[in-house]
Amino acid sequence: MPLITFKSLNKSVNIAPGNNLLKAAQKAKIVLDSPCGGEGVCGKCLIRIVDGDVDSDCLGIISEEAIDQGYVLACKTNVLNSPITVDISEQVSGIDGTLPTEHDSIKLINHDFLPKPSQYNPIAAKLFLQVPEPKLEDGLSDLDRLTRSIHEKLEKQQVNYTLDTIRNVADTLRTDEGNVTVTMVKKVGLYDIIDIESGDHSKENFGIAIDVGTTTLAIKLVSLPDSKILATLSDYNDQITCGLDVISRINFANKPEGLSELRTRVLNTINRLIHNVCEGPAIDQKMICNCVVAGNTTMIHLLLGLNPEYIRREPYTPTVLNTPYLMAEQVGIEINPQSLIYIVPGVASYVGGDITSGLLCTDLTTHKKDISLFIDIGTNGEIVIGNSEFLMTCACSAGPAFEGGGIESGMCAAPGAIDRIEIDAKTGLASYQTIGNVRPKGICGSGMISLLANLSLTGWIDEAGKFNRSRKSQAIHMDRRNAYYTIVPAEKNQGGKSITISELNIENIMRAKAAIYSACALMLEQIGMGFNDLARIYIAGGFGRYIDLEKSIVIGLLPDLPKERFQYIGNASLVGAYMALVSKQHRQLQMDLSQRMTYVELNTNSEYMNQYVGAMFLPHTDKHRFPSVQNRLEKR
Amino acid sequence: MPLITFKSLNKSVNIAPGNNLLKAAQKAKIVLDSPCGGEGVCGKCLIRIVDGDVDSDCLGIISEEAIDQGYVLACKTNVLNSPITVDISEQVSGIDGTLPTEHDSIKLINHDFLPKPSQYNPIAAKLFLQVPEPKLEDGLSDLDRLTRSIHEKLEKQQVNYTLDTIRNVADTLRTDEGNVTVTMVKKVGLYDIIDIESGDHSKENFGIAIDVGTTTLAIKLVSLPDSKILATLSDYNDQITCGLDVISRINFANKPEGLSELRTRVLNTINRLIHNVCEGPAIDQKMICNCVVAGNTTMIHLLLGLNPEYIRREPYTPTVLNTPYLMAEQVGIEINPQSLIYIVPGVASYVGGDITSGLLCTDLTTHKKDISLFIDIGTNGEIVIGNSEFLMTCACSAGPAFEGGGIESGMCAAPGAIDRIEIDAKTGLASYQTIGNVRPKGICGSGMISLLANLSLTGWIDEAGKFNRSRKSQAIHMDRRNAYYTIVPAEKNQGGKSITISELNIENIMRAKAAIYSACALMLEQIGMGFNDLARIYIAGGFGRYIDLEKSIVIGLLPDLPKERFQYIGNASLVGAYMALVSKQHRQLQMDLSQRMTYVELNTNSEYMNQYVGAMFLPHTDKHRFPSVQNRLEKR
Repeated sequence: MPLITFKSLNKSVNIAPGNNLLKAAQKAKIVLDSPCGGEGVCGKCLIRIVDGDVDSDCLGIISEEAIDQGYVLACKTNVLNSPITVDISEQVSGIDGTLPTEHDSIKLINHDFLPKPSQYNPIAAKLFLQVPEPKLEDGLSDLDRLTRSIHEKLEKQQVNYTLDTIRNVADTLRTDEGNVTVTMVKKVGLYDIIDIESGDHSKENFGIAIDVGTTTLAIKLVSLPDSKILATLSDYNDQITCGLDVISRINFANKPEGLSELRTRVLNTINRLIHNVCEGPAIDQKMICNCVVAGNTTMIHLLLGLNPEYIRREPYTPTVLNTPYLMAEQVGIEINPQSLIYIVPGVASYVGGDITSGLLCTDLTTHKKDISLFIDIGTNGEIVIGNSEFLMTCACSAGPAFEGGGIESGMCAAPGAIDRIEIDAKTGLASYQTIGNVRPKGICGSGMISLLANLSLTGWIDEAGKFNRSRKSQAIHMDRRNAYYTIVPAEKNQGGKSITISELNIENIMRAKAAIYSACALMLEQIGMGFNDLARIYIAGGFGRYIDLEKSIVIGLLPDLPKERFQYIGNASLVGAYMALVSKQHRQLQMDLSQRMTYVELNTNSEYMNQYVGAMFLPHTDKHRFPSVQNRLEKR
Repeated sequence: MPLITFKSLNKSVNIAPGNNLLKAAQKAKIVLDSPCGGEGVCGKCLIRIVDGDVDSDCLGIISEEAIDQGYVLACKTNVLNSPITVDISEQVSGIDGTLPTEHDSIKLINHDFLPKPSQYNPIAAKLFLQVPEPKLEDGLSDLDRLTRSIHEKLEKQQVNYTLDTIRNVADTLRTDEGNVTVTMVKKVGLYDIIDIESGDHSKENFGIAIDVGTTTLAIKLVSLPDSKILATLSDYNDQITCGLDVISRINFANKPEGLSELRTRVLNTINRLIHNVCEGPAIDQKMICNCVVAGNTTMIHLLLGLNPEYIRREPYTPTVLNTPYLMAEQVGIEINPQSLIYIVPGVASYVGGDITSGLLCTDLTTHKKDISLFIDIGTNGEIVIGNSEFLMTCACSAGPAFEGGGIESGMCAAPGAIDRIEIDAKTGLASYQTIGNVRPKGICGSGMISLLANLSLTGWIDEAGKFNRSRKSQAIHMDRRNAYYTIVPAEKNQGGKSITISELNIENIMRAKAAIYSACALMLEQIGMGFNDLARIYIAGGFGRYIDLEKSIVIGLLPDLPKERFQYIGNASLVGAYMALVSKQHRQLQMDLSQRMTYVELNTNSEYMNQYVGAMFLPHTDKHRFPSVQNRLEKR
């Protein structure tokens, strides 16, 4: 089999002729950006052939100039019978191990919402016991003596043991004169003993909280006796190569072995994160006996290997919303195999446990008077409105634009992403800054908001998002009906590639912002309220360092309200999962929330389409909704 | 690798030089009798080399004549670099698939003890449900709708689902318009749903009852809605090659990988039996969702992969007596993987669940006045005495003599076993009958009891079990201190092998009968009673067709009481396991019994040794204990 060498990464792999280079990269454990799932549509898996012959179809996506330089789509380029050397340094994201920066969102939220020490009560607790030695007279088995010792310390109720625990009991009881630590899950009327160790390990109880996002996974390793966060890590979801949004994942799951591949990929990501997060504090993965997972309904279905098809089909009924506790070894998460996994309960097919989880980071659900709004901006936008009296929720398909999907130069909020852009009102030329202050690789969600807002404020685009055809700028290139705006020209970029946004891209971003704004507006309308009646607006989502509120209002993503009413809470889902990990009361709160929320289905709501069409302008067709923006636009 | 051909079985196998022929047989999946576990001690794995060179050590066990004919010990014969043809037709048992005949012991017991239809209540029940179709408005997941349907039919309590079930829910609900059958385990406060099928399968609920004996395993396949026994099968325990009694198995478990091998072997036997028992009624193994296992404490430890070492060491403390319900896939039993296995609770290291189970076939534990005795005669003898007020139990090591172990010509109660022998008072020559009326292969337990009794009654042996040196018979051969009695001379046996019992063998049988009788006597003495005070004596054990009561009294195995006080109940453990399979009340009865019994440890009881020494005579040193036998001996 020919050898494929990935030049800049110093990796190589043998693969049979006929396979494409996306597969070869996967085999070499290299993640190429491939949001369309290898369909040759998105153009993201662009790589350069340095040496060797290939059979490639460029499908008209790549310019002739690029083809001459050796650029091909990895997914549409098949290996022949000879070795190939590939350069993937031009891949816009993910190629060299750069990850979205994980900010500790716990700093963003009000610490009054965090569990108090009196509430610390994890799923599995550790209990130190001194078990008396066996005696001929008492007729007790090892298990009987152990049960008696547990009953001496705790309320007398049934004690169950896993087979693996039973297998260790005899020798462990005899290792350190009966000094043992049992790991137990307390249930109603029952203690489940899932592990036994010799000696006193009652202070060594660890847990992990996981947020499974469509694009990014994040994890916290926690020491449970004091609920201390030992480490936080995040990584791309390995499923990205199977499609960028939940609908394309559901489609992928329909392929033969598709569901199994998606499950393997998300498990690989989770287990890699667990492995890595344990390295720093040098914790043995098998010592982790607690685990909470928050994620949207589709992500949870894929993680558990459940057919997600019915999520997509009317009447949009998922298999599970409230998942029973499941054993780690059954789910495939590599911690103590007998540990129970708690999955944060969801509300509906498109409002999952990530939202139930994230709400714990706010006072939206508990405030007796104030009505607040919660917006989680991601590939799907989820919205919650209410207070302690009522809770309404809905979801809208924003599309992956804010995460860089569907935009040629788009990327996640990772180092190299342009996240702020200023436009010179006269020349129309851009100045920008990137995350990490490194060479620009692409543009992320906050960058696109910034770009759109400033193009609008400087009059280079109109309220429909179209470039002003009467003004000329070096940065704008007209091509029949489409127009392109160049943020970084190829000649000014070390890698030789320009970073450009088209009118079509702008339309995608406007669709995303319109979907979210109109969903919020509809929800308020349904309860006879306006944005002004809201006490607070919580914004969750992976915007990297921040979301630029002012610019978000300028493009009409967020309502035109004073800045102090907004609070950005970052990855609230992960912080909520952490709360559930350490506190039984917070697990119960999530359960209550999931049942209190009334779900409004927008897919079948005709009024939603009216609202959406109204929001497909900058900032909105109804100018009175955005008075401060209108004011600025009139002044330009 | 040289090819080893097993002539009569038409099987062959390649094995590397240096391996012995016992291993070659195992590789060819042929079970050779090998009670000493391949130590070259028992002489049971005798086979004949027909062709080819081998490296063999006969250790003085095989006669020179037999060596000339090509006989070798399989365990001490290594393969060289050339092909070998082996004849194993002379193996005394197990070689050609002959199994101990399994009599349906259910016929032997009083049917009043069997569960009544009103008591039918298996571990897992099947419930037919009509689940409404998904609706957009109700916000319910598939699992929510299923749970609601269950609550409409049954008491409202928590419903739990296994992950495998959850994976099948969505498609199953949509296959037959919501008509589904769930398999559920009802627990306190909880229903565990372990399977879901489309359509109505509520009448197709199957279960298996398994008796795991040291020597033999037996199984019943049961249709649970009507508790009908569909088939009964038995087979040798594949562990036999690792040692014949529990102590040698425990020793084997101490070897590297020994425990794992023992577990695999008993699981292989169980799974083979399940496969075979399902063939007749054409039941899919995966449709079996109920399983009860009864066995002695060591067998249960080995089945579960628990280190049995502490059973053998003072203070004889087992890991488990009352095992929690365990999942079939964890245990390794190949039925529906999510099924729960119920293991009949035991009393002590040497009084296991087989005894708790067997007692259900008697009225010993329920009779308000009468005190009765229960004796299970096997490799270990277990004894229970009591009534509804008290229960005492003990165990003694009878040794494998009654099952053919430790006796050169001994074998199990299988076709070809001599099970009755008459002795001509004048000539001392034997006439006999075999199980199945086929060519004699060896002698089984009932045959040995018959032989000893008749040799004693005809005066050919004295009360110490020694041959009368002053009388001459063609059947008796004196060799220094030892004497041999030939039942079947080589020249009269087609296979050319004689069937002979030595004075040393007789001593083994006497040890076995003395162990059992003296244990019974000691128990009675401890409560200030004699055998005459017993209302009934129940005898359980695998004696094949019957145990000859009269002859058992003659040798002093059983007390000298009128025949009508005895009742032979066969494999009571298996019948008790069947009762537990169909009735929750009977499972509870077993649990209560296991906790009611007071265990008397004989290993550390000095009085037991006195009783034992007294019983090492035919019938006993105390002649008054056996008046009817004494009468017959004096008349001879």
